[in-house]
Amino acid sequence: MNTFGKLLTLTTFGESHGPCMGGVIDGFPSGVAIDMGFVRQEMERRRPGGSMASTTRNETDEVELLSGVFEGVSTGCPIGFMIRNKDVRPTDYEQLRGVFRPSHADFTYQQKYGVRDWRGGGRSSARETACRVVAGALAKMALRKWGVDIRAYVSQVGDARLAENDADKLQALMAQVKAGDDTIGGVVSCCVRGCPVGLGNPVADKLHARLGYAMLGINAAHGFDYGDGFEGVAMKGSEQNDAFKLEGGRITTVSNHSGGIQGGISNGQDIRFRVLFKPVATIMLPQHTVDVDGHECEFMGSGRHDSCVLPRAVPVVEAMTALVLLDEFLLWRAYAPATNK
Amino acid sequence: MNTFGKLLTLTTFGESHGPCMGGVIDGFPSGVAIDMGFVRQEMERRRPGGSMASTTRNETDEVELLSGVFEGVSTGCPIGFMIRNKDVRPTDYEQLRGVFRPSHADFTYQQKYGVRDWRGGGRSSARETACRVVAGALAKMALRKWGVDIRAYVSQVGDARLAENDADKLQALMAQVKAGDDTIGGVVSCCVRGCPVGLGNPVADKLHARLGYAMLGINAAHGFDYGDGFEGVAMKGSEQNDAFKLEGGRITTVSNHSGGIQGGISNGQDIRFRVLFKPVATIMLPQHTVDVDGHECEFMGSGRHDSCVLPRAVPVVEAMTALVLLDEFLLWRAYAPATNK
Amino acid sequence: MNTFGKLLTLTTFGESHGPCMGGVIDGFPSGVAIDMGFVRQEMERRRPGGSMASTTRNETDEVELLSGVFEGVSTGCPIGFMIRNKDVRPTDYEQLRGVFRPSHADFTYQQKYGVRDWRGGGRSSARETACRVVAGALAKMALRKWGVDIRAYVSQVGDARLAENDADKLQALMAQVKAGDDTIGGVVSCCVRGCPVGLGNPVADKLHARLGYAMLGINAAHGFDYGDGFEGVAMKGSEQNDAFKLEGGRITTVSNHSGGIQGGISNGQDIRFRVLFKPVATIMLPQHTVDVDGHECEFMGSGRHDSCVLPRAVPVVEAMTALVLLDEFLLWRAYAPATNK
Amino acid sequence: MNTFGKLLTLTTFGESHGPCMGGVIDGFPSGVAIDMGFVRQEMERRRPGGSMASTTRNETDEVELLSGVFEGVSTGCPIGFMIRNKDVRPTDYEQLRGVFRPSHADFTYQQKYGVRDWRGGGRSSARETACRVVAGALAKMALRKWGVDIRAYVSQVGDARLAENDADKLQALMAQVKAGDDTIGGVVSCCVRGCPVGLGNPVADKLHARLGYAMLGINAAHGFDYGDGFEGVAMKGSEQNDAFKLEGGRITTVSNHSGGIQGGISNGQDIRFRVLFKPVATIMLPQHTVDVDGHECEFMGSGRHDSCVLPRAVPVVEAMTALVLLDEFLLWRAYAPATNK
Repeated sequence: MNTFGKLLTLTTFGESHGPCMGGVIDGFPSGVAIDMGFVRQEMERRRPGGSMASTTRNETDEVELLSGVFEGVSTGCPIGFMIRNKDVRPTDYEQLRGVFRPSHADFTYQQKYGVRDWRGGGRSSARETACRVVAGALAKMALRKWGVDIRAYVSQVGDARLAENDADKLQALMAQVKAGDDTIGGVVSCCVRGCPVGLGNPVADKLHARLGYAMLGINAAHGFDYGDGFEGVAMKGSEQNDAFKLEGGRITTVSNHSGGIQGGISNGQDIRFRVLFKPVATIMLPQHTVDVDGHECEFMGSGRHDSCVLPRAVPVVEAMTALVLLDEFLLWRAYAPATNK
Repeated sequence: MNTFGKLLTLTTFGESHGPCMGGVIDGFPSGVAIDMGFVRQEMERRRPGGSMASTTRNETDEVELLSGVFEGVSTGCPIGFMIRNKDVRPTDYEQLRGVFRPSHADFTYQQKYGVRDWRGGGRSSARETACRVVAGALAKMALRKWGVDIRAYVSQVGDARLAENDADKLQALMAQVKAGDDTIGGVVSCCVRGCPVGLGNPVADKLHARLGYAMLGINAAHGFDYGDGFEGVAMKGSEQNDAFKLEGGRITTVSNHSGGIQGGISNGQDIRFRVLFKPVATIMLPQHTVDVDGHECEFMGSGRHDSCVLPRAVPVVEAMTALVLLDEFLLWRAYAPATNK
Repeated sequence: MNTFGKLLTLTTFGESHGPCMGGVIDGFPSGVAIDMGFVRQEMERRRPGGSMASTTRNETDEVELLSGVFEGVSTGCPIGFMIRNKDVRPTDYEQLRGVFRPSHADFTYQQKYGVRDWRGGGRSSARETACRVVAGALAKMALRKWGVDIRAYVSQVGDARLAENDADKLQALMAQVKAGDDTIGGVVSCCVRGCPVGLGNPVADKLHARLGYAMLGINAAHGFDYGDGFEGVAMKGSEQNDAFKLEGGRITTVSNHSGGIQGGISNGQDIRFRVLFKPVATIMLPQHTVDVDGHECEFMGSGRHDSCVLPRAVPVVEAMTALVLLDEFLLWRAYAPATNK
Repeated sequence: MNTFGKLLTLTTFGESHGPCMGGVIDGFPSGVAIDMGFVRQEMERRRPGGSMASTTRNETDEVELLSGVFEGVSTGCPIGFMIRNKDVRPTDYEQLRGVFRPSHADFTYQQKYGVRDWRGGGRSSARETACRVVAGALAKMALRKWGVDIRAYVSQVGDARLAENDADKLQALMAQVKAGDDTIGGVVSCCVRGCPVGLGNPVADKLHARLGYAMLGINAAHGFDYGDGFEGVAMKGSEQNDAFKLEGGRITTVSNHSGGIQGGISNGQDIRFRVLFKPVATIMLPQHTVDVDGHECEFMGSGRHDSCVLPRAVPVVEAMTALVLLDEFLLWRAYAPATNK
């Protein structure tokens, strides 16, 4: 229940205010040179404070590899890692002990488990995604030899869409929302270049179903589509179909409404999908709620929180994409017929 | 790769024009009375020809149970079943042998496997979903004792949304598209009533991630969201948060923007999600494409096809929902603390 | 719970006296020519009546492929198959309805599931292994291109061990036991030639652990060892260690006490293991037991039963071995570094 | 490949001479009071130096819990833990860099992965089993409420079997072998009391198949049997069958040749099985082998090693048993019909 993947798996553990977050990457190929500088760089992209929409919590997020890498190279054995929780101030969160924050996981955890680590959201904190960025960074290194390139970006904040040369509008909206002590959601789009034809599977493990599952596992993700998706709902078959053509002897498509996936299997075109994130639940405004003793009460967020999760979600979306794709590459190699050696 | 589920699993097999479609339901609880009349009823809802948007292929879709049910009751052993492919006319599809139909799986299958059953799309045919309706019908029977009610419906065709008392607009649009030999997509919405607090898991197997995975595994599904989803993208945290309140001593929420799931776990409210379906790829209009010998050519659909997959997708959406929920009920029982006995 | 394997999976269904036994082989590589003559040949080896120790039940065991094979070649899609239960005589088993046969699964099924198909043992019948032989035959076809050869044989019946040129002693013992209306167990040994170095995994999925799991899943199997196993328990490290040497430039071992597996991974030597089978539980002698109404009573076996399961277990042992090895070959390909391309 | 279990899983990582060994226990029930004193006690049983047959390596084996336990109680979230490798002396093992030790995993790892952590055997070191003892200790705590009692013991060393009141003979043999710089194997037997009827599954996940898989995953384990096992091979069906009888209104068996499992499912009697361990591969005597440059050479073990793994294997056998049983209890709860509530 805390493990992603089929051959390549990531199992994570850790609570926001425990001693550390950590994970185990299993099924990682041997012989991959591990560049810790790149891991740090990816972690930096996810770090709070990197944008004015982010919390000011100082997470150094130093990654310690505990196994599976020897003399700078992966050995094929499980890669354990941990990130210590250094800037822990549980007193900030003492007020969380007794109250169910609206649209947080406090209530559902309490009911499901009969007990919960209330410090900073415990296991439900988005801090868990730091582990995914570590694993994603390693997966990206392994994917390099296949020439795969994964790029995610904030394409929409609230109803403001990314226009060419105008990411400023998005930044402005985020700043404005933060000033109002409120939060806002939006869309992260992702484009994968360089995938061969043949990744994915036809029925249960369709490539887009695996991507959707991975994305919907990110905190605050509430939607997923690929290709034209919800935006193309008014288009007819004659408008959405991707005609095949020859290009330099290779079969390719004239358009890419399918988002690079047909019948659950990559068709060699760019893989394009979107992930919807809802607004962060913690707002600095008073809200009605119930406490653990069953009395109605008021709650107002405090402490360090993002007003918009989108900028920090970008490397997480890439990381989860990398995990799915490396897993599928391994499966693809397992079955490779003559045509995709 | 053809198996869904964790404890309750459905493994399917079969090609559109082979001897039969079939499957194995494993991990199904013992002691459930199996009502084959209800199975037939569910199959009837998925049957082609049930709506003017559907194909006229005469699929009687008689379900034969092969195991796991004894004297009308499930035994806890795997339930094998099959549905014979009676109305097979392979000659209808002879033209498919040599051509890659645009936005179909012909090309990706050929490249991935080096071989493909080209008869009517083979394994990639939506006929595979008949097996899911069988399994879903059985899952619904097992869910009855927990009082769970699953209802899906076509909520949008193209850009026409379901208004109160006006499903006619949707029907009209489908008819109009069919008359133009074209196809159209849309949205199936689903609402689940009666789930307790506590179904689902916090990280990898979030309830909505499992639902999304299941829905994106349905043919032609291109998107998924839950709660306010993409429609609520402009709303701020203060607008989307669901305040808690007391109602007759029980904790509930004032609103349900979360779609009944918080932190990956059901919160006792209605579970609401949407599934986007793209237009059917087979259109009765000429399209440019490439044949298996690597020459460009024209292709025009013929035979029996749906102009809009939505009406027939409704029972499939319900079936996949039932499979996910029964699976989660079993997991929930496995871990049930005092509070959710 | 009825599925074996990781990438290559076999899911079976069916009860001894239901309409059929069947299964789904998923994750089978595409492009393998399927020789149904070979399948029949393997089924014939398992057929009752092939030895005087076997039942006289006439099981024609005709295998019908339902999917996944097109124009004689595997397509990469799941291979569904079934074997109809033709020679069903439920009246033979009517007495089984009300009684718990000693050392059979009647009692444990009844308690676990609250219901059971009592006809001929239902799901617990060794007839289920027919499905494994089908899948094993297909796996053997796929393994041919890697030059793998799997040979199992009865090496011990009761305390009579197979001596060179003297399988007669074993046959004689089986005949003698049958004449006494009793049953006897023994050992099936298996030797696999032609495996490369590198199959298997170091910790959870050790090659011998997977083989042991597969063998212990065969009806009546009560033990497993590999290499010198229990027989070598008195030998010291200095006697059991396999010294390495060079042979034509390749590293090999002087002896093979390890049974071809070191650290959970094949070392290129012959893989050697043994499977212990207990005596068949159904004997033609009166036994004390309890009926379903909770009264003590006498029970005496009747109908058609094996006095010794060993001869028929041989192809099942080979089949399960083939399933494990093909699965491991696929995993090995997925991860193949330069050294085992 | 480093994960055990279905609902309750243990994923381990770490090499003998890396910074630490560690693991993640997932699917552990919430609300279990975690007694770290008991964990330490179990670790102490596995500690080297506890018997004269053991190495003198000073492993303090302090277990640090990193997550999943809050205020002394399990939260239902994954339990990460680590055990630092304190007494690491890599120079002891410098000679291992260039040589393939006979009957160790050096050669197979090198071939499979193209790279290996040669320090003290790296991942293949039996030190990995420390993680299993941690997880097993926690599983035992969870099992207490069901009244399950697991007891393993050394029942045979070489050909010396445990006789009543005479464990001295076994100790003497181990001492004698150690004095000769050699090693010896033997048998650990295990008895589980207090299991209800109904744990396990009929086909793939038979209870004994799961136990066998778990035991064969322990370093140096080369065999497994249950009930009368290999020792009872000469007994006929009439001698091995367990007649049912009534005892105080409950159905029980007169004898227990089946080892508490019938048809893959526990029958309420004591579960009895044996695990064979081969002699430790590292001996203090010169052996012929090959180095990594492909030259034949001599190798002689040095450093700290067990002459007999058996005493330290006892808590590992118990731990793996506890993991399998807790997993099966969870599955049993998931499906519990009226009869086993």
